[in-house]
Amino acid sequence: MSKQSAYDQLIERSKHWKCLESISALLEWDQETVMPPAGSDYRGEQKAALAEEIYKLKASKEVGALLKDLFDAKRGVTDEITNPDQRVIVERIAQDYDELIKLPIELVKKKSSLTSHAVSKWAQAKKEGKFSIFAPQLKELFDLAREEAEHLGYEKSPYDALLNQYDHGLTSEKVAALFNPLRESLSPFIETLSARECPLIDFGPNSFSEPEQIKLCKELLQKMGLCPTRHNFHTTNHPFCLSICPNDVRPTSHFLTDNLLGGVLAACHEGGHALYEANLNTKFRGTPLCEFASLSIHESQSLFWENCIGTSRPFWEHLYPQLKEQFKTPFEAISLDQFYAHIVKVCPSTIRIYADRVTYPLHIVLRFELEKMLIEKEIETEDLPALWDEKMQSYLGITPPNISEGVLQDIHWSAGLIGYFPTYTLGLLYATQLFDTFTRKFPDWETQVAAGNWAFINEWLKETIHTHGRRFDSDALITHATGTAPSANYYLNYIKTHYNL
Amino acid sequence: MSKQSAYDQLIERSKHWKCLESISALLEWDQETVMPPAGSDYRGEQKAALAEEIYKLKASKEVGALLKDLFDAKRGVTDEITNPDQRVIVERIAQDYDELIKLPIELVKKKSSLTSHAVSKWAQAKKEGKFSIFAPQLKELFDLAREEAEHLGYEKSPYDALLNQYDHGLTSEKVAALFNPLRESLSPFIETLSARECPLIDFGPNSFSEPEQIKLCKELLQKMGLCPTRHNFHTTNHPFCLSICPNDVRPTSHFLTDNLLGGVLAACHEGGHALYEANLNTKFRGTPLCEFASLSIHESQSLFWENCIGTSRPFWEHLYPQLKEQFKTPFEAISLDQFYAHIVKVCPSTIRIYADRVTYPLHIVLRFELEKMLIEKEIETEDLPALWDEKMQSYLGITPPNISEGVLQDIHWSAGLIGYFPTYTLGLLYATQLFDTFTRKFPDWETQVAAGNWAFINEWLKETIHTHGRRFDSDALITHATGTAPSANYYLNYIKTHYNL
Repeated sequence: MSKQSAYDQLIERSKHWKCLESISALLEWDQETVMPPAGSDYRGEQKAALAEEIYKLKASKEVGALLKDLFDAKRGVTDEITNPDQRVIVERIAQDYDELIKLPIELVKKKSSLTSHAVSKWAQAKKEGKFSIFAPQLKELFDLAREEAEHLGYEKSPYDALLNQYDHGLTSEKVAALFNPLRESLSPFIETLSARECPLIDFGPNSFSEPEQIKLCKELLQKMGLCPTRHNFHTTNHPFCLSICPNDVRPTSHFLTDNLLGGVLAACHEGGHALYEANLNTKFRGTPLCEFASLSIHESQSLFWENCIGTSRPFWEHLYPQLKEQFKTPFEAISLDQFYAHIVKVCPSTIRIYADRVTYPLHIVLRFELEKMLIEKEIETEDLPALWDEKMQSYLGITPPNISEGVLQDIHWSAGLIGYFPTYTLGLLYATQLFDTFTRKFPDWETQVAAGNWAFINEWLKETIHTHGRRFDSDALITHATGTAPSANYYLNYIKTHYNL
Repeated sequence: MSKQSAYDQLIERSKHWKCLESISALLEWDQETVMPPAGSDYRGEQKAALAEEIYKLKASKEVGALLKDLFDAKRGVTDEITNPDQRVIVERIAQDYDELIKLPIELVKKKSSLTSHAVSKWAQAKKEGKFSIFAPQLKELFDLAREEAEHLGYEKSPYDALLNQYDHGLTSEKVAALFNPLRESLSPFIETLSARECPLIDFGPNSFSEPEQIKLCKELLQKMGLCPTRHNFHTTNHPFCLSICPNDVRPTSHFLTDNLLGGVLAACHEGGHALYEANLNTKFRGTPLCEFASLSIHESQSLFWENCIGTSRPFWEHLYPQLKEQFKTPFEAISLDQFYAHIVKVCPSTIRIYADRVTYPLHIVLRFELEKMLIEKEIETEDLPALWDEKMQSYLGITPPNISEGVLQDIHWSAGLIGYFPTYTLGLLYATQLFDTFTRKFPDWETQVAAGNWAFINEWLKETIHTHGRRFDSDALITHATGTAPSANYYLNYIKTHYNL
C-alpha cells in the first residue's frame, strides 16, 4: 500500500470516529438542556455504549498499522507524505493514539466506574459538610491518577503527564513559571482593591425577566458573530457550550431574575467558546486541524470575550441604553458609572465560581499547588482540608466558613479531572496576552466596541487562533499570535492599568 | 457453551445495539426540533456513521453463531431454554436477524443513497408540479423495492415481503380482506355526509396564541397519563413522537394561530404514541419484549386517543369550558354543539393529511392498490398520475387540481417507504375494534371522560396492548385484546353509529 493510500485510509477512519464523537457531544448537550430528568440513567448507558464503540475504532489494530506505516525509523512522519498539513494531521492522530493505547482498558473502566460513584459521594459530602464521606474515594482517585501518570509517562513529574491530557506539551515547571508571579503580585493588589469603596447594587428579585434576558443574549451572540442558522441557545443550570460541528454550535446560559450580569457574562463567555468552534476550518473536517488546540486555548477565547471585551467600559457604553430601554425600572436611578463600578468590583470570595477576574487566578494557583503536591506524594489527601484553608487565608485573606465552601466546593476531582484546573488560569493569561496584541493592532477598538461594531474582533480571533486548529501546541500558538512566549506580565499589567494600581 | 450462557450473551448484545439505536432516535428528534438548520448535512453523516456501527453489531457473525446455537434442527428455539419469555425473545431477535442478513449490504447502501437523492427530486417535482422530474427516481425506487422483496422472500406476492417489514406476518390478502369492505361501504357514506349542512367555523388569524396552545397541550398530555418527569414536549413542522427509552419519550405538535384543533388533536395523537412507549415493560429493556408490536399497532394507539377519545363529544365537554376561559374571544359566540359539529364534519379533500376519519381510509386504500399493482408489475410508474386521479374520483368523488396535490403529495415513496401506507388504516381499524371492547368494558366511559378522569383509559391500554411488547404479531395481539380477529366491521359500525347512518 502506498503511503498516500495509508494516509487516505487513516483520514477516512478519523472522520468516522470524529463523527461518532460529535454524537457524544449531542448526548451531553441534550442531557443538560432538554432531556426529561427520568432519562438520566439510560443516558449514562447510552454514553457508555457509544464510548465503547468509539474506543474500539480509535484503538484498533488497523489504526496502529496505518500509523506505523506512516512513520519512519526515526519516529518522524515519512518523507513520502509531503503536504505539510497532512504531516501535522498524522502527527496529531499519532499523538492521540499513543496516549489512548498507553492506558490499559481496565484502568479506563475502573476510572469510569470509580468516578460515577465518587461524584455522588462528593455531592453527599458537600451537602452534609463532611469530608470523611468523600475521603476514601478522593484517595482512590489520586492513587488512580498516579497510576495513570505512570502509564502515560513523563520526564520530571508524574503531574506533567496529567497536565498533558488537557494541554499537550504542558509541564508543571511551565505552569509554575506562569503562576508564581500571580501568587506574588496579586495578593497585595487584592488587599488594595478590596479596601476601595464601591457599594454593590442590589437590584432585588424579579428585576430581570428570563425571556427578556434570553432575548438580550441572543442579540448579543449574533452581534459577537454567531450566525443564527448555525447555532442555538438554551438555558441550563451550569452554563456551557458544546459543538456538534462548526455549523451547529450550542452555547447556553443560566439566568437569575435578580442578577442580570451573571447570565449576560456567561452568554458572552460561552459565545466565545462557540465562535472558536464555529470558525474551525471545515476544509479539514474530521481531522485534528479542525479541532481546538487545547483546553487552555479554548478558555482564552471565552475569557477574551467575557473579560477583555465583556467587562470593558465601551462594551457597557454600547449596551447600557438598551438595558435601560428593555428593563426600565431597575436602571432608573443608576448611572452607567455606578453600574460599571458594580461590574468591575473586586471582592474576594471563598467560592471559585463567584470570584472576579482579579481574585480568580489565586483560586487556581491554590488548586494547582495542592494537586501537584498530592500527585508527587508530598502530602496526603487527608491533609487537604487544613492546607486548603491555610492557603486560602494566605492568598486571599479569607477562610471558608465550612468545608462545603472549602475543599469540597468543586466537582472536578470527583469526576476524575486532575490536572484540569490550571487550564482556567492559563486561558486567562493567554486571553490578556492576546488582548495586548489586539489593542495595539486596533488602537480605536474602544470606539468600535462602544459603537456596537464587533465583527472585527471575531475576524481577528478567527485568523489569529481559530483557523489553525490543532496545528500548534498552546505555547507555540500564543507565541505565533502575539510574537512572545506566554507570560504572566500581560495579565498583571492589564489589572494594574485597569484598576490604576 | 451452555444454551443459557448463549442466551445471556445474545441479550447482552441486544441491549448494546438497542442502546445505540436509541441514540439514532435522539439524532432524529433533535434534527426535527432544536437543531440549527445549518447542522443538517452533518446530521446526515452522523446518522449514517451510527447506522454503520449498529449494522455491524446486529449482523455480526457472533450473533449468527449464538442464534444458531439457540435453535434446534427443526428450526425451533432449543428446548433447553425453558422460560417462555426468553423463548419469545430469541424468536424475535432471530426474526430481525434473518431479515437483516437477507438484504445484501450493497442493496442497503444503494437504497440509502437513492432515497437521499430521490427525496430532493420529489420535493422539486412537487414544487414545480412536474411528475417528469421525479419519474426516473420513482421507477428506480419501485425496481429496487422489487429487488428487496426477492431477497426477503415471500409466498404469494412480492408486495407481502414489503408489508412484512413494517408489520410482521401481514400479507396483501389480509390487507385486501380488511380494506375491500371500506372501499365498498365508505363511498356512499361520504356522499351522504358531505351533503349534510355544517358550516365550518372560521376563527380568523391570531385567535389562538402558540404559548397558550402549548400550555393547553402540556396539561392534556399529563391528563392522558404522561408523567412530567418522563417526557418533554416541543413544537415542530410535522408532528411526530420519538422515544429514547420508556423514561424519556418525546411527543411533539405543530401549532397554527387560526386553528386550535390541528395542534390539539396532533398532541393527542402523538401523546397516544408516547404512552405506548412509556408503558413498555422495562423489565425486558433491551429486548423485543420492550419494543412496540408493529407500526400498525403503534398507529392504533395514537388513533385510539385522537379519534376514539379526542373526537368524542365527552372529551370536548370536558375541555370546552377551559377553552372558553383560556382563549376567550374566539369562543364567545360559539356553542359546544356548533364547535363539536365543526370538529366532526366530513368533507373530502384531495390531500391525505387534511382528511377526516371517514375519508382518510380511502386515501390509504388507493395507495395500497397502486403500490401492490406496481410491485406486481400490473402497472408501471408512468401510469400513476392518471390512475391516481381516476381512483380519487371514484372513491372520494373529487379530482386533484394539480399533480402536486395528487400523486406527488406524499414524501413516503421518495424515502423508500413502500408497503408502509397500509399501517395507517390498519391502525384505525384496530383502534376502533379496541374501542368497541373498551366501551363494553367501561359502560360509563363517557361520564368519566367528560369529568376529566382519563387514567383508566391509559391503564386499560397499558394492560391490553403496551405491556406485551412484541410478544404477538398485530393479528394475534388484536385477537388477544378483543376476542375476535381483526375486522373492518368495528370501524364501519363506529362510523354508522357516530353519524347516524
